[in-house]
Amino acid sequence: MTAAALSSRHPLDEEHLRDRVGSALAAFLAHQDSVLADIAESLLPVAEAVREFLLDGGKRLRPGFCYWGWRGAGGADCDEAVAAAACLELLQASALIHDDLMDSSDTRRGRPSVHRHFEGLHRAGGWHGSAEGFGEAAAVLLGDLCLVWTDELYFSSGLPAESLLRARPHLDLMRTELMAGQYLDVLEQAVGGGSVERAGRVLRYKSAKYTVERPLQVGAVLAGAGKDLLEAYSAFGLPLGEAFQLRDDVLGVFGDPSQTGKPAGDDLREGKRTLLVALAEQEGTARDARLVTELLGDPALDAAGVATLQEVIRRSGALEEVERTIQRLTDQALDALDEADVLPRAREVLRRLAEVATRRSS
Amino acid sequence: MTAAALSSRHPLDEEHLRDRVGSALAAFLAHQDSVLADIAESLLPVAEAVREFLLDGGKRLRPGFCYWGWRGAGGADCDEAVAAAACLELLQASALIHDDLMDSSDTRRGRPSVHRHFEGLHRAGGWHGSAEGFGEAAAVLLGDLCLVWTDELYFSSGLPAESLLRARPHLDLMRTELMAGQYLDVLEQAVGGGSVERAGRVLRYKSAKYTVERPLQVGAVLAGAGKDLLEAYSAFGLPLGEAFQLRDDVLGVFGDPSQTGKPAGDDLREGKRTLLVALAEQEGTARDARLVTELLGDPALDAAGVATLQEVIRRSGALEEVERTIQRLTDQALDALDEADVLPRAREVLRRLAEVATRRSS
Repeated sequence: MTAAALSSRHPLDEEHLRDRVGSALAAFLAHQDSVLADIAESLLPVAEAVREFLLDGGKRLRPGFCYWGWRGAGGADCDEAVAAAACLELLQASALIHDDLMDSSDTRRGRPSVHRHFEGLHRAGGWHGSAEGFGEAAAVLLGDLCLVWTDELYFSSGLPAESLLRARPHLDLMRTELMAGQYLDVLEQAVGGGSVERAGRVLRYKSAKYTVERPLQVGAVLAGAGKDLLEAYSAFGLPLGEAFQLRDDVLGVFGDPSQTGKPAGDDLREGKRTLLVALAEQEGTARDARLVTELLGDPALDAAGVATLQEVIRRSGALEEVERTIQRLTDQALDALDEADVLPRAREVLRRLAEVATRRSS
Repeated sequence: MTAAALSSRHPLDEEHLRDRVGSALAAFLAHQDSVLADIAESLLPVAEAVREFLLDGGKRLRPGFCYWGWRGAGGADCDEAVAAAACLELLQASALIHDDLMDSSDTRRGRPSVHRHFEGLHRAGGWHGSAEGFGEAAAVLLGDLCLVWTDELYFSSGLPAESLLRARPHLDLMRTELMAGQYLDVLEQAVGGGSVERAGRVLRYKSAKYTVERPLQVGAVLAGAGKDLLEAYSAFGLPLGEAFQLRDDVLGVFGDPSQTGKPAGDDLREGKRTLLVALAEQEGTARDARLVTELLGDPALDAAGVATLQEVIRRSGALEEVERTIQRLTDQALDALDEADVLPRAREVLRRLAEVATRRSS
């Protein structure tokens, strides 16, 4: 469909875009279904699992920032731009599937994680060998599949080749940064005793750049934006992305399981070295710092242990400081957005996306 | 460097190409080193591990078929084509790193596998948490990194955008087939009792298409080849790829560890449902079939167990039949190559690559 044919649609807001991203993903996955079915029927569970993972809601934040980055740079509304932006959801699916595997998480959005789902298929089938090993292998491969499909959706989106090739290095850098940030995250958990500074670096690369800044820039470069807008998007996107991740960190410790779809205190059990934890260690009493060392990352941490760590994080002032930081970063981002030379409707939606990213409860 | 400037180089054979693929990879990785170093110094071990994995020899078979597929289609010799072909080595590295993780293999080419290497770093550092878990996470992420770098090297190779975009769907399909084939392989090991037919499908998708047919076709489409040459490359590449994988299967059971860099009988311990195994079960006595069921896939299988299974595979006639099949498939491939409308020098080198692929001992 051409941009002209679509102009009557008025995708007024981010809710509408979410549906369109879902449709673009559904169309792409329907094509992949037939590719997989041509190879073997026994690939059906793979196609199904990817579809369930991708089409089961989600905030579509990264495609949102990419698409509105495009619109803000003067790109016309069109399904092609939505499809290109939707590829970031495949990247995110890959990251989450592999992340859940690395963290041995049992659930994702209130449902079994991919490795647990395939472990369940193995058990139900009474198959040979280790059910756990089968689940892990399936998760490695499904994550890989989503990762290679990222490019395929991007390049088959229908946007002009010139645009796609121009923005590609930004997409590449974004992915390298994501993998690097994830490695640093795992490394911090292993090395332990991380500083506030090191926690900040993980946050920046694993999440902040990847969630807001780079998607905005990919959208902008697709639309042919120059250096000034890219810098403006950084000035908006980097603090906002950091605020997004800090909100995530708070939810990982204090979130309501019925909203987050994750068990309470999951990040504490996994030993995530977040800024929240680093501040609690730095600002808390020596006794509290010892409690952190002792309890953080204990896979068997029970409700009482979670409550203890929550209390330590509260009374050290870390929670309050992180909440203040979220507010400060969000204000800084919104100020930068006011200054940015973007089209008015995009500014309005980006402002609302900033709300979604920082005030959410899931 | 332009094609013209290079025409005096006369890359006469596949050995020379191996060096050039190594150089292209080295240059690409040097660039990524600096990207990673800009993020954090602690990413150094990641960059080093990828470099060691990629620059430590290897047969460079897939880039070889891709490059000579290009030359056979009339593409001029140039560093750009070598760089584009070299991207397949990054894909292969990703597949091997993740494969070793899924198979819990301790070694690769006689050295620790990536997950074991990082497990060792964790132990040496006396870090927190599970050393095994850290090794696994690092291997997931390094494999992901190599996978995304596949595209980056492809698109930054310097070949004309038009060529790159034209061949991209073939590269995409190749990767989907690879992941699908790997899943089918894992599934066969789990479900067990696989038929000769099902073993053949795994072999085709996991390896045959991916190792020979698709690389040749990517090269051909990059050079602008038409349907006839793609079909001729299939007629050559598919049987050759199957022969390649059957040779691999034989080496996985009977290979000399000093040559393969893998412990003797590793495939038996991992429970790989190869054609060799399927034939032994089908053609052997009922008692031998029971021995296969009992011993195959036992992680603790000792030298005596390996010898027993080797003997079962021999006396069932499976080994002989597989060797005959390798010969038949290779002959079929070479006949197809004789018929194909490719340039003479490419035909000559492709013939030698076919030898390397099917008569190797490692």
